[in-house]
Amino acid sequence: MTRLHAQTPVAPGDTIGILGSGQLGRMLALAAARLGVKVHVFCPESGPAFDVATTRTRAAYEDDAALAKFAASVKLVTYEFENVPSHTAEFLAARLPVHPNPGALATSQDRFVEKSFLNGLGVATAPFEPIDNVAALARAVTKLGRPSILKTRRFGYDGKGQAMIRRGDDPAAVYRLIGSAPAILEGFVPFAKEVSVVAARGADGSFAAYDVNENVHENHILSVTTAPAGILPATAAAAVEMTAKILDALDYVGVIAVEMFVVGRGVTEKLIVNEIAPRVHNSGHWTLDGSVTSQFEQHIRAICGFPLGSTRRYGKVEMRNLIGDEVLAWRELLREPGACVHLYGKHEARPGRKMGHVTRIVEG
Amino acid sequence: MTRLHAQTPVAPGDTIGILGSGQLGRMLALAAARLGVKVHVFCPESGPAFDVATTRTRAAYEDDAALAKFAASVKLVTYEFENVPSHTAEFLAARLPVHPNPGALATSQDRFVEKSFLNGLGVATAPFEPIDNVAALARAVTKLGRPSILKTRRFGYDGKGQAMIRRGDDPAAVYRLIGSAPAILEGFVPFAKEVSVVAARGADGSFAAYDVNENVHENHILSVTTAPAGILPATAAAAVEMTAKILDALDYVGVIAVEMFVVGRGVTEKLIVNEIAPRVHNSGHWTLDGSVTSQFEQHIRAICGFPLGSTRRYGKVEMRNLIGDEVLAWRELLREPGACVHLYGKHEARPGRKMGHVTRIVEG
Repeated sequence: MTRLHAQTPVAPGDTIGILGSGQLGRMLALAAARLGVKVHVFCPESGPAFDVATTRTRAAYEDDAALAKFAASVKLVTYEFENVPSHTAEFLAARLPVHPNPGALATSQDRFVEKSFLNGLGVATAPFEPIDNVAALARAVTKLGRPSILKTRRFGYDGKGQAMIRRGDDPAAVYRLIGSAPAILEGFVPFAKEVSVVAARGADGSFAAYDVNENVHENHILSVTTAPAGILPATAAAAVEMTAKILDALDYVGVIAVEMFVVGRGVTEKLIVNEIAPRVHNSGHWTLDGSVTSQFEQHIRAICGFPLGSTRRYGKVEMRNLIGDEVLAWRELLREPGACVHLYGKHEARPGRKMGHVTRIVEG
Repeated sequence: MTRLHAQTPVAPGDTIGILGSGQLGRMLALAAARLGVKVHVFCPESGPAFDVATTRTRAAYEDDAALAKFAASVKLVTYEFENVPSHTAEFLAARLPVHPNPGALATSQDRFVEKSFLNGLGVATAPFEPIDNVAALARAVTKLGRPSILKTRRFGYDGKGQAMIRRGDDPAAVYRLIGSAPAILEGFVPFAKEVSVVAARGADGSFAAYDVNENVHENHILSVTTAPAGILPATAAAAVEMTAKILDALDYVGVIAVEMFVVGRGVTEKLIVNEIAPRVHNSGHWTLDGSVTSQFEQHIRAICGFPLGSTRRYGKVEMRNLIGDEVLAWRELLREPGACVHLYGKHEARPGRKMGHVTRIVEG
């Protein structure tokens, strides 16, 4: 009888921890299973990831006793969302590896810190100003002009915690709208396209990126991703290079998504980074069917210290989210030859809720 | 809020039952998860399928109280192995749908019944004689000649419960070797190749087959499958047609594997059915990476009353089992570009134990 352990932090048969029980945690758990790695999901609410986890803990992120027990049961911890409380990340990181590291998490949690970090690396962002009060906002609106966008520094996602300041709007009223929380004001970027890079970095510094995604949002929620993005090869190469630079600077281990705006068209194309997500990302879901290694498997490989996998794309791919009632077409989608349907097992199709996605490989 | 139920026996969000907790049950559970279907695994021993099941019951197949509770918790039951005790299958079938049906299961469990059924359909098998005692064996050896193969009627797999009778062997001694159990004697078939058809039938009679597999066994255990098989198109078409006939005759719902010998070469090629496996099959593992719909998803679709998926193959594929210590190469395999590695999460690499598999898509 031979055990599988080698000189890696994790070997097949071991258990890793995941914070969060949504569909991203679920697909991470399924990818871990493919590699023989067991998963312990920790979340205050039960959700799709609980259904496929070997072990589940339902407890608050502030419950230190539960966190200590969780930490003792796993080889390392990762997470499916960037709003992991910093206390939770630090409590766990004092006990075992947390990937991506709490510093990367903290950077991505605060829009001001994030954009300052990016500019410090020489990566372009929209112009921005920190806002702590109405007076600062008035000065920033004068400086950045209208329209501009007011965003809370923390806890924004899917368009929540942000509002436009247009001609005629009262900035103070818009500030109250986002709860008068610490914020940034961003200059408006008239972008031609939204793209994203999903890439991974291993602890040994190895790097692997998927081809750049082109994303279309509806009501601030991702609707369709196509890969490869319809941008110049030089622009795509610059997007990947920028992502590698960000990963190195963060000493990052795992999969990251970097969301960017493409400004201008043709030879005037340039890139502005919008935000980074320190996790697997909706715009990378097509890799489950359209690539040799899915983003979920890639993340598991990276955090476990396994070699990164091939990111070769099988064809031109299109991934469409099934939001709310769109999932009711599941039976027709299953009938469509070549449609790869993924359903997250959520019972209730609430408006705006991500219920599943479907990937089509359009041409070889 | 909208629920997902339609006029199907099962809808995404529902729970189905699986008997058996091996790697086949595990890959069925992972496929069910992809479609949003939850899984309750019932097995006397914990195993790889338990790791990814939403619910687990560890109880004997003869434990009626546990079976009744299991039946009450799921919409239907399927199984990962053909040696489900007939009492268990019938107990469950009296309460809810069991797919494939207990009749198909019973047919495949007894080599004499199975081969008689196939011959009754006009499907060729090796010549065979039922054996209940030494006198019958002596007569059969005279009739079928040497070498011939003595096989127990029930509970044989991976070469267990069978023995050759060669020139000079004492048939009575060989009969004792297989435990003097009810058996059949099979005439020896000098085959050129072993192939298998993995196919599915829906409750509505719909049918979908994958391209024919070519299989190489080592020590009676599947070692390598390549698809498509190197046989004449007409032979491949006949293999698929034969499989459809078998499925219809059994009123079968789910995925089946039909193992065949190819006798002769070139224009003299003909097919002899060796046995049927009323379940997903090792020779179909390549479909996880090499086809639009995996055999596991196809089985879930069939038993849940969902439309069957496309069986389109992405390229020439090769699937290699990782048996026993072969799995120790897992890290090198993960490093190989384009190798799709699957590990079953078993801790101990015992000799002969199926620990994982690796699929390579050889050409487009």
